[in-house]
Amino acid sequence: MFKIQYTTDEDFIGRSRRPAAKTDDIIPIVRDVLVAVRDGGDKAVRELTLKFDKSCPNDLLVSPEELDAAEREVPDDLKKAIAIARENIEKFHRSQLPQKREYVETSKGVVCWQQAKAIDKVGIYIPGGTAPLFSTVLMLGIPAKIAGCKEIVLCSPPRNGGAINPIVLYCAKILGIHKVFKIGGSQAIAAMAYGTESVPKVYKIFGPGNRFVTVAKQLVNSADTAIDMPAGPSELAVIADQNTNPAFAAADLLSQCEHGTDSQVGLFVTSNEKADEIIAEAKRQLAVLPRREIAAQSFANSFAVIVNDTCQAVHLTNIWAPEHLIISTDDCNEIADQVQNAGSVFIGKYACESAGDYASGTNHTLPTNGAAYAYSGLNMDSFMKKITFQTISEDGIRNIGPAVETMAAAEQLDAHRNAVTVRLQQLK
Amino acid sequence: MFKIQYTTDEDFIGRSRRPAAKTDDIIPIVRDVLVAVRDGGDKAVRELTLKFDKSCPNDLLVSPEELDAAEREVPDDLKKAIAIARENIEKFHRSQLPQKREYVETSKGVVCWQQAKAIDKVGIYIPGGTAPLFSTVLMLGIPAKIAGCKEIVLCSPPRNGGAINPIVLYCAKILGIHKVFKIGGSQAIAAMAYGTESVPKVYKIFGPGNRFVTVAKQLVNSADTAIDMPAGPSELAVIADQNTNPAFAAADLLSQCEHGTDSQVGLFVTSNEKADEIIAEAKRQLAVLPRREIAAQSFANSFAVIVNDTCQAVHLTNIWAPEHLIISTDDCNEIADQVQNAGSVFIGKYACESAGDYASGTNHTLPTNGAAYAYSGLNMDSFMKKITFQTISEDGIRNIGPAVETMAAAEQLDAHRNAVTVRLQQLK
Repeated sequence: MFKIQYTTDEDFIGRSRRPAAKTDDIIPIVRDVLVAVRDGGDKAVRELTLKFDKSCPNDLLVSPEELDAAEREVPDDLKKAIAIARENIEKFHRSQLPQKREYVETSKGVVCWQQAKAIDKVGIYIPGGTAPLFSTVLMLGIPAKIAGCKEIVLCSPPRNGGAINPIVLYCAKILGIHKVFKIGGSQAIAAMAYGTESVPKVYKIFGPGNRFVTVAKQLVNSADTAIDMPAGPSELAVIADQNTNPAFAAADLLSQCEHGTDSQVGLFVTSNEKADEIIAEAKRQLAVLPRREIAAQSFANSFAVIVNDTCQAVHLTNIWAPEHLIISTDDCNEIADQVQNAGSVFIGKYACESAGDYASGTNHTLPTNGAAYAYSGLNMDSFMKKITFQTISEDGIRNIGPAVETMAAAEQLDAHRNAVTVRLQQLK
Repeated sequence: MFKIQYTTDEDFIGRSRRPAAKTDDIIPIVRDVLVAVRDGGDKAVRELTLKFDKSCPNDLLVSPEELDAAEREVPDDLKKAIAIARENIEKFHRSQLPQKREYVETSKGVVCWQQAKAIDKVGIYIPGGTAPLFSTVLMLGIPAKIAGCKEIVLCSPPRNGGAINPIVLYCAKILGIHKVFKIGGSQAIAAMAYGTESVPKVYKIFGPGNRFVTVAKQLVNSADTAIDMPAGPSELAVIADQNTNPAFAAADLLSQCEHGTDSQVGLFVTSNEKADEIIAEAKRQLAVLPRREIAAQSFANSFAVIVNDTCQAVHLTNIWAPEHLIISTDDCNEIADQVQNAGSVFIGKYACESAGDYASGTNHTLPTNGAAYAYSGLNMDSFMKKITFQTISEDGIRNIGPAVETMAAAEQLDAHRNAVTVRLQQLK
């Protein structure tokens, strides 16, 4: 972790710039996969699965028997932990459901309202790899269920032997997600975007993934399919003052660093001494971590900014717009109100990011790479769309009709004007 | 307008398929423009403006004097019409502002909430062309102002002579949008996405445009900048029964057809006789429209589906997912509740689409090309992002900490577990 003494915003911006993601090299490969699956359906998916995952499941769809068998493999203490997480995630996301319709009479006789409706068909991607990201099944599946999405498709790559990780399957099972497919990578994104003989086409695709998955999501998004948000390496900012517990701050920084060597971590701290304390403590904790090789690399690339005060710290995190922000200072409640750009904010000494990653109830799918300037983290809005409705009475068209006629004429759209004129004439 | 007798959903899907947009040919051109502006700033913008718009304004920024002069050019009756529209749009969009924070205690001691914050910097693109789309300035500028976006940038191409249409400028002026630039096309999108010496970089870009603008928005969206939604030709579905006024339905269909030869229009009607009546009436109205050449072409490409009943009609419009849906039937209120996929819905004989295009209060920036499956029309959410916050007390971390430890261990993320463990140990 290298230290920066704050001087100017411009200097900070220069030093905290995120590395640009390199994807140009794989775009042609992913494009070929998309075309192959779009045109070849299940057969293409099978061939690509054999090629990339060295595995060829007999059946792409996970059977009810496989789901039952997975359930038996999950230890009881983990089931209990998952139940706690599930309850909290449900509670928080259910609270976000839109309230009852509000009818707004904008002019007398003109009534407008919004209504949120679930997206009918959604797709969830759960990456494979060494660690099974079953928590993401909860984070995507629970709000999809609460929204009322009628069809929820889940794809995850088969491991050696051709099965999906049992904890991932268990989470899908308890949420009532029955269409689970042993498909990974960009072929999974293609299958959900275009549909195949087995995999239903969906309207929006959610979930993390490697570079190939990310590029595939971008490419299908440019065409027809909505996606949750742009993806980038995971990020954490910690704001610390003289009373921050260095062991807590160090553990939080490392929890982000272990995600990958490209993880982005920043410490914003009000004294040089505290920075040194936290860094020293992090080095002690790092030495005994199982994923220390990964964490050490991203920790070495991380920065600590020495700031004048906590207000300046939050000002800089607003410039950086981190995915996660921990505020572990005496004035944490006050400065939390000044947060403008961040995905999820953790206030106080006990609010560690990993609580939000798993079980506090907030979503862990969050905007990275500065997307927090414009994007929300995943929430109930992500699984619904709002339709506007309006009714116009005779009085209503009399009230606003002439304004519409005048404006349509000024835009040289006479047929637009005429749609009002024929109605006003009939009312004369 | 060609008639289809409904037989099966599959048959309808085949016949109502939208033509695919062709953009591959212009991607390299647009990519060059993006790179030129990103690297060359204002100088590149000027060169491209001269090349594409045959115009080279001295100053890219519209001066306060130019804004004042524009105001004097707008006739009083149009100003009054704009004032009515503005008030209604403000009223409806203000009603969408998020209510006060709701604190949710998910487990004892764990409190989570969402807070919506304005996107700091947004960009608005207003196309040039023959008709000045000043109504779009209202539809994008009003919610941006209500949200509290700090910086609102507006770009619109200079016409011959180097000025932006005065009505467009007038609308910007009354909304308090001061950063108005005489820049059009993909160079405008690039300038707002990357920033230049004069044009501030923004985080999200809104607004319609031609193919070049659409592709530029897609390309900057794949990198760093959020955009409002994918763009496609305008669309309208009308549901009609035996009592629908044929003159109204015909006028509505034509109001959509005049947008462009690629406009998509569909009539869903419960009898063959009513279909014939509406088509005959449309042909009469078409003959006297100023934009009849455009409207005639898209009307010829439009379809009328003869359905068994209005329930079937709304079922088919849900499959088609039109941008606009007019329900002009006796049972309009009942079947409106069955709408699942549409951008904006107009209920009853006086609710014409052009009312919503200008002055009823709803937004006219809506999902096209089937995007209504997954996207909302523009609304207050589009100008804000929601940040989640959480506080966790000593009790809170005791309550959920063990579940987090268990789940993190199962995902093999030990540093995540450790962030909880160090806290629980300190509390022992």
